[in-house]
Amino acid sequence: MASLNRESTPAAANGTSPPKPHSEGFLVRGRQAVRRAWRGWRRSTGAPIAGNIAADLPDRDLALVRQQIDTCLAARGGEVSARAIAADLGRAYIGLNETGRWRFFDLLARDYKADRDALTAAAAALQAATDDATFADTQKQMRHALIPPRLRLLKQFNGLEEGVKFLVDLRADLMEITRRHGTDPEFQALNRELYELLSSWFDVGFLELRRITWEAPASLLEKLIVYEAVHEIRSWEDLKNRLDSDRRCYAFFHPSMPNEPLIFVEVALVKGMADQIQTLLDESQPAADPATADTAIFYSISNAQDGLAGVSFGDFLIKRVVSELTREFPMLKTFATLSPIPGLRAWLETAFDQGDLTLEAAQAETIGRLNGNSDPTIYLMALFEQSDWLTDDTIAEQIRPILMRLCVTYMLTTITDRMGRKRAVDSVAHFHLSNGAQIERLNWKADLSQKGRRQSAGLMVNYLYRLSDIERNHEEYKGAGKINCAGAIKNLA
Amino acid sequence: MASLNRESTPAAANGTSPPKPHSEGFLVRGRQAVRRAWRGWRRSTGAPIAGNIAADLPDRDLALVRQQIDTCLAARGGEVSARAIAADLGRAYIGLNETGRWRFFDLLARDYKADRDALTAAAAALQAATDDATFADTQKQMRHALIPPRLRLLKQFNGLEEGVKFLVDLRADLMEITRRHGTDPEFQALNRELYELLSSWFDVGFLELRRITWEAPASLLEKLIVYEAVHEIRSWEDLKNRLDSDRRCYAFFHPSMPNEPLIFVEVALVKGMADQIQTLLDESQPAADPATADTAIFYSISNAQDGLAGVSFGDFLIKRVVSELTREFPMLKTFATLSPIPGLRAWLETAFDQGDLTLEAAQAETIGRLNGNSDPTIYLMALFEQSDWLTDDTIAEQIRPILMRLCVTYMLTTITDRMGRKRAVDSVAHFHLSNGAQIERLNWKADLSQKGRRQSAGLMVNYLYRLSDIERNHEEYKGAGKINCAGAIKNLA
Amino acid sequence: MASLNRESTPAAANGTSPPKPHSEGFLVRGRQAVRRAWRGWRRSTGAPIAGNIAADLPDRDLALVRQQIDTCLAARGGEVSARAIAADLGRAYIGLNETGRWRFFDLLARDYKADRDALTAAAAALQAATDDATFADTQKQMRHALIPPRLRLLKQFNGLEEGVKFLVDLRADLMEITRRHGTDPEFQALNRELYELLSSWFDVGFLELRRITWEAPASLLEKLIVYEAVHEIRSWEDLKNRLDSDRRCYAFFHPSMPNEPLIFVEVALVKGMADQIQTLLDESQPAADPATADTAIFYSISNAQDGLAGVSFGDFLIKRVVSELTREFPMLKTFATLSPIPGLRAWLETAFDQGDLTLEAAQAETIGRLNGNSDPTIYLMALFEQSDWLTDDTIAEQIRPILMRLCVTYMLTTITDRMGRKRAVDSVAHFHLSNGAQIERLNWKADLSQKGRRQSAGLMVNYLYRLSDIERNHEEYKGAGKINCAGAIKNLA
Amino acid sequence: MASLNRESTPAAANGTSPPKPHSEGFLVRGRQAVRRAWRGWRRSTGAPIAGNIAADLPDRDLALVRQQIDTCLAARGGEVSARAIAADLGRAYIGLNETGRWRFFDLLARDYKADRDALTAAAAALQAATDDATFADTQKQMRHALIPPRLRLLKQFNGLEEGVKFLVDLRADLMEITRRHGTDPEFQALNRELYELLSSWFDVGFLELRRITWEAPASLLEKLIVYEAVHEIRSWEDLKNRLDSDRRCYAFFHPSMPNEPLIFVEVALVKGMADQIQTLLDESQPAADPATADTAIFYSISNAQDGLAGVSFGDFLIKRVVSELTREFPMLKTFATLSPIPGLRAWLETAFDQGDLTLEAAQAETIGRLNGNSDPTIYLMALFEQSDWLTDDTIAEQIRPILMRLCVTYMLTTITDRMGRKRAVDSVAHFHLSNGAQIERLNWKADLSQKGRRQSAGLMVNYLYRLSDIERNHEEYKGAGKINCAGAIKNLA
Repeated sequence: MASLNRESTPAAANGTSPPKPHSEGFLVRGRQAVRRAWRGWRRSTGAPIAGNIAADLPDRDLALVRQQIDTCLAARGGEVSARAIAADLGRAYIGLNETGRWRFFDLLARDYKADRDALTAAAAALQAATDDATFADTQKQMRHALIPPRLRLLKQFNGLEEGVKFLVDLRADLMEITRRHGTDPEFQALNRELYELLSSWFDVGFLELRRITWEAPASLLEKLIVYEAVHEIRSWEDLKNRLDSDRRCYAFFHPSMPNEPLIFVEVALVKGMADQIQTLLDESQPAADPATADTAIFYSISNAQDGLAGVSFGDFLIKRVVSELTREFPMLKTFATLSPIPGLRAWLETAFDQGDLTLEAAQAETIGRLNGNSDPTIYLMALFEQSDWLTDDTIAEQIRPILMRLCVTYMLTTITDRMGRKRAVDSVAHFHLSNGAQIERLNWKADLSQKGRRQSAGLMVNYLYRLSDIERNHEEYKGAGKINCAGAIKNLA
Repeated sequence: MASLNRESTPAAANGTSPPKPHSEGFLVRGRQAVRRAWRGWRRSTGAPIAGNIAADLPDRDLALVRQQIDTCLAARGGEVSARAIAADLGRAYIGLNETGRWRFFDLLARDYKADRDALTAAAAALQAATDDATFADTQKQMRHALIPPRLRLLKQFNGLEEGVKFLVDLRADLMEITRRHGTDPEFQALNRELYELLSSWFDVGFLELRRITWEAPASLLEKLIVYEAVHEIRSWEDLKNRLDSDRRCYAFFHPSMPNEPLIFVEVALVKGMADQIQTLLDESQPAADPATADTAIFYSISNAQDGLAGVSFGDFLIKRVVSELTREFPMLKTFATLSPIPGLRAWLETAFDQGDLTLEAAQAETIGRLNGNSDPTIYLMALFEQSDWLTDDTIAEQIRPILMRLCVTYMLTTITDRMGRKRAVDSVAHFHLSNGAQIERLNWKADLSQKGRRQSAGLMVNYLYRLSDIERNHEEYKGAGKINCAGAIKNLA
Repeated sequence: MASLNRESTPAAANGTSPPKPHSEGFLVRGRQAVRRAWRGWRRSTGAPIAGNIAADLPDRDLALVRQQIDTCLAARGGEVSARAIAADLGRAYIGLNETGRWRFFDLLARDYKADRDALTAAAAALQAATDDATFADTQKQMRHALIPPRLRLLKQFNGLEEGVKFLVDLRADLMEITRRHGTDPEFQALNRELYELLSSWFDVGFLELRRITWEAPASLLEKLIVYEAVHEIRSWEDLKNRLDSDRRCYAFFHPSMPNEPLIFVEVALVKGMADQIQTLLDESQPAADPATADTAIFYSISNAQDGLAGVSFGDFLIKRVVSELTREFPMLKTFATLSPIPGLRAWLETAFDQGDLTLEAAQAETIGRLNGNSDPTIYLMALFEQSDWLTDDTIAEQIRPILMRLCVTYMLTTITDRMGRKRAVDSVAHFHLSNGAQIERLNWKADLSQKGRRQSAGLMVNYLYRLSDIERNHEEYKGAGKINCAGAIKNLA
Repeated sequence: MASLNRESTPAAANGTSPPKPHSEGFLVRGRQAVRRAWRGWRRSTGAPIAGNIAADLPDRDLALVRQQIDTCLAARGGEVSARAIAADLGRAYIGLNETGRWRFFDLLARDYKADRDALTAAAAALQAATDDATFADTQKQMRHALIPPRLRLLKQFNGLEEGVKFLVDLRADLMEITRRHGTDPEFQALNRELYELLSSWFDVGFLELRRITWEAPASLLEKLIVYEAVHEIRSWEDLKNRLDSDRRCYAFFHPSMPNEPLIFVEVALVKGMADQIQTLLDESQPAADPATADTAIFYSISNAQDGLAGVSFGDFLIKRVVSELTREFPMLKTFATLSPIPGLRAWLETAFDQGDLTLEAAQAETIGRLNGNSDPTIYLMALFEQSDWLTDDTIAEQIRPILMRLCVTYMLTTITDRMGRKRAVDSVAHFHLSNGAQIERLNWKADLSQKGRRQSAGLMVNYLYRLSDIERNHEEYKGAGKINCAGAIKNLA
């Protein structure tokens, strides 16, 4: 499932393990705020199970859970009562450990899916329908049969305080457990249903774009620090710098999770297209006057909710932000990113290994001169692990053209996905190209952090969002997998 | 479709024609605010059709609309572009007259429904699936096939300013047109799909309960005046009285329609169970001290959005409000309504006509003494049209026991609905009984307005919400159609 | 004191009796909200007097009040305790009738003024001071001696909920009582001190300018209806029209009275300088597109708080609003008023009576032709009372040049005030000329309301605020009493 | 002037140099936000001086400043124009260095004070007045004469964005410069006038009490970190701990400085009276359930604005917070502080030196046993500098009763102030006793920080606020200097 996320945004695509406090964080708060809030949903009849079941959900307790679920689904006592039972189940879930949660998901996955008989009956009716009216009726019948009991159960949570966040984190738990325990078609089906439910709830039309400033609640800013997945926020001072008068930060929010950013982007307002990330993040630099800027650089986009993996917000976010910035700063002429190239090193390694890629003779010769090593590709790969060669210009300047060309090759490489469509092999490139951007410029010594050096030998790339080309680029890429890029890039290739 | 509304709330159930400014109101604003807002969604390519098509949508313009819909569905240019096209279509729709709108719905109803071939293929695959993984996959395939193109089109509107309100009003238009032009299975299917879409969006879990006071924006209060459907708000002073310190008004709102109440309830905090509506609405009465009240009387519940007919909020609203009031006024002991009996007169007339109901001898004799008329039922029915007999105690006191008994008979009468379930014949009774209330008391000379006299000879009823009985009452009514009522009512019957 | 208000703004200057619900309104609310709020200020020792004194404050109860005041001023028990006593006194005051209030003011006026001995001692010390340090100290001593005990008492109210509004209304009561009971130097001194206190608190620097729209709370809009003093707001629909998209309404608010406008102005955005008030107020006119307007017409300015008479906000309000409008609508080129001429008829009457003004021969002849009456001025004056001559063009067109010339004469007439400064005789003219405006145009048949015809035979005037001239105009008027006006006006004169 | 602050609150009273970024901080922001905001106040005539004068304000530029001040005071062009000039002067001031500011203050202090002739004339008139009316008039005349031109100038700033904060910081600058350049009666008089102006503006009745939580803007929380003057906030995590669910933080704000706390207090909700500050500040402690707390401990009160030295908020703050807490947690029974004893060590040293204090024989003997040193007081004083003896119970337990008794002696010691009133020698004690608290308990090993050990050998004190005693305590202390304390304290003494 992680691949859903990988395909859509750079956040989870950078190859490192991002901080993962989401679900756990929720559980911690769960023990305090949510449990308190949900305790308020008292049923007028029946005993609660929360507090009375063991953390690993042994068979006896699983039976209690099943009974509670059945009562909820029977909706005896009306909808308010059903929600009270859901709150009880939610509090019970929060108290479970990993084994308990696995057993809970297993219960949902096997015993509360859509009814097979009803589905086959509906399918038969649908095939048998002759006139329009009957055909419409059978569709309605089929739509109904397709809603599994577990979905009716989970939907109850949207009416509880923090209930939507609970479901988002529940899906994150499910994906994490799937990752550890191996794939199972039943779990996959459950995950798919959760994904479709959350996709409909988190339709981008329902989201609110908010600018985040240093005036925002500390409790919200704290989450940016945790959720930032591209360039780690090292301190509150680092964060304050990213919210300075020559910066902008925007996030999408959902009305049911008003204090939880879904995705956020950090923008620097600069003169000319930025080519170095450490300069942008340097807190000691004074703020520039944003009124004099001609370029907006999107230097970080992070998905904040693991449980929303596969739900795509990034495209809309960038375009809404471009539109906001254009209104505030009519002088802005260029909208571009300064992006990592997370897959470069891994791809090169595999490509060299499998012989898909070879160095040109002149390149090999240059490296040979630097190093007596018999295999220049091994030398090249080793550079990604070292920290000093980039500052040694006698080496760096010779390596530069070689790596730049290899990187262009990588950037323009496409693969074919499960649906048979061509797409860029680099996940970040795929994200921006899908949005209609083009590859504008490679930047040497652009990210000197350890991560930057390891992933891409310090290289970064600018993707350019030119409003007049976005629709065409998008169509060409989506259709034929065409990767648009600037002339200079083409020349390098 | 109107019956959906009738079944669920008293608002549309009172037999009069409520004010219907919703859709029209929207169109009026449409010509100003919405058109302006949506003009902002500029496409980078392609010409807009809004402004270039005739109001009755002749064939030539219908072709333009079709072309625009196709472009939108093809999603060329990405999702932002798709929304821009939707905005254009929306502006075009707003400009249509009734004929134009009929033709627009006809286009959607016939040419953009779910694909029959895809559905039958999915049905076949579903039936053929053997293992769990395949079965899950075929469900996913079927879910996809069930989403008609028109739904993908209409969903685009949720991202536009006022777009959700647009869809709600669009459905109101569709139902109105259906009412006038007669039922058509294709139109019904379209309506059903819109209903299901709006049901999922307006799930009660996403709604916000807000108290409405005299501090609320005038633009919102103005809507209460328009939307009130039970006891007409005659002036701003009348409204102010209903928001006084011994009153409460609560409404549900949806995040995408923050200034549009969906349903609202008016509550009076009084001592003892209120038995007269004019007293409650008398502006000259000083406000009582709410701290001394022991009873909360729900004296008006109105659905505000015709386009959400069939989406049920009332049950949740009443229970949330009971919970709010209990927190604010722990002294409250009784929660009850003072409700109209909208169907009494019409039902009596039919029942007498068809011989389903006859007067007892003593009753007939009593009436005979008052009136030499040979048919006492005709005399009774005539009273509903007259205004003076209620103030003439020599008549009223003799008629009173007769009408009270007839009314009890009516209140306890059940019918069987399309699904074979027994339900109360009175729509308001059905609403409150479904929520778990019981019939507590009939009130004589309770509504002396013309409407009150015509519908129910001035009778009103209190439905009692006793928290400890709600679940049981709900189950007994939903299950066996059992109508719970107070002992005094039973004695009358 | 009323003259302070009269001199400064057109609101009280129009010669009619404006609605006066302020003080009374406060007392009404006082019996509910304020009394409740202030009851919360419980003293830990000592019994409250509120509730225990008679409404006309007989001697025995006056002694109780005096004792309570003394305790408050002694500030035993600390400042919080002092405020609790003030709250008690405030509640007692609210319960007084007019006689009681007169006796309360009398008590403050005579027994709680600044101490004469301390003042003369401070005066002696001040005169005796030789070195700078001593001189500074004696100033401090004098400043202290000048603060009468009653001011220390009244200042306690600023910390109570609605306490500042209480003081404002208290001063309104004081002025009203002075008006009825005749002037008294002691009452005048008390009023002067209250004026100075309120002036410092309501310094324009502390005020907040807010735009008022139809989205404002009904409880606020209701106050506009009550406070409007120039052109009566006849209904909520009339009000809504004045807040339409081609209108603007701005008010000043004080942080301690967040729901009470101090002064408000109504503006119409139009093409060309408006010449007719009924057209502006016509609810049936559709809203114009404000983006196409080139002129902002200030057609009503009303002071809302009688108790702030003499505290001047109007100048700042107009200039702040001009600045807001300029920012929102850069296309606006002209800022002008459409103002009443409230004193025209009364001035003409007196001037004719006293022989200060005579008609020219040709004018008298014209009138003679219309009317055999021997005295043309009596004929002229009678027209102000009649309603039909303005619609009879055979008369109106002959009278027009005569009244226009007389009006110009009036507009340019100056008087000398108590300070020996020249000022325009018309109060509204004085207000706008003081602000730096110039008289731009007289408008015939501009206000056809009964009030407009009676005061000024339907004439109205445009005052023009030209930003580049405001400072110069202001200085010339303030200095030499020069009345600037447009060339056309000069020609008429 | 600093002594005003020292006398009134513990913040500046703790003997250390608190962080002083206020004025400087303002200047830094001044260079950005304020300069930008004030640039908007364009005069229609006359050139601005800001940007055209040297930082040390040489004579030539001083003349420009004088000219600008004169223009402002002449108020030519109306009040809006006067404010524009003030904005220009403010921007000029912000650009000055310390010398320039000294020269600016010198100009105000000598050339813009109240007019001596007018004052002596007013004094003569006041003395000559015979009847009441004249006497009232002469008071008005005197009040007018007492307003120096510089005050009229400075008042202009209240209408500018951040203008009130500017004046507060201006006074802080003035006091700082006075501190460095020595006292001057003219500067003192200027400071006094500023103090009186700010006192009237910052009257506690105009202040707003706000609770500060982790949901507050980061920009506000950042200020708490800077302004905390009692127990340094070491990090954002430390701050978050102080805002946890078992803590409360309240601050006073002024409407004209909505983002600047004036004074704030930190409260812990605990069981029993806290006796150790490090335990309270330990971030690793889990939050207690505030519902189970019986005691509110005020463990830090800090004044935030140096420029408001002498303006007293603390008394009101504590009482308002007690009232808020009582409402939120009716179970709270005890309200007390855990306070430093900042002057203990310094006082002991002086008292021993001057022979005002001697050890009892038994005390001296005990110390002698611990240490052969010939002077036990020197040994005692040395302990304040050492860090290890407190953890060595063989020493600590013997020293404990000696230091506790000395501390009680100190706590009960009074001095006589300039006005001849008796007050506690300890500044923090004076603050709380003035508010009506009593000394409740001394705590051993209560503050083990370096500052705590140095100032008071780790001792801290609880002051108890018992609502029923506050008024009496306050009166007894204010009147006769009586220091109320618990029986256990009396026994120690």
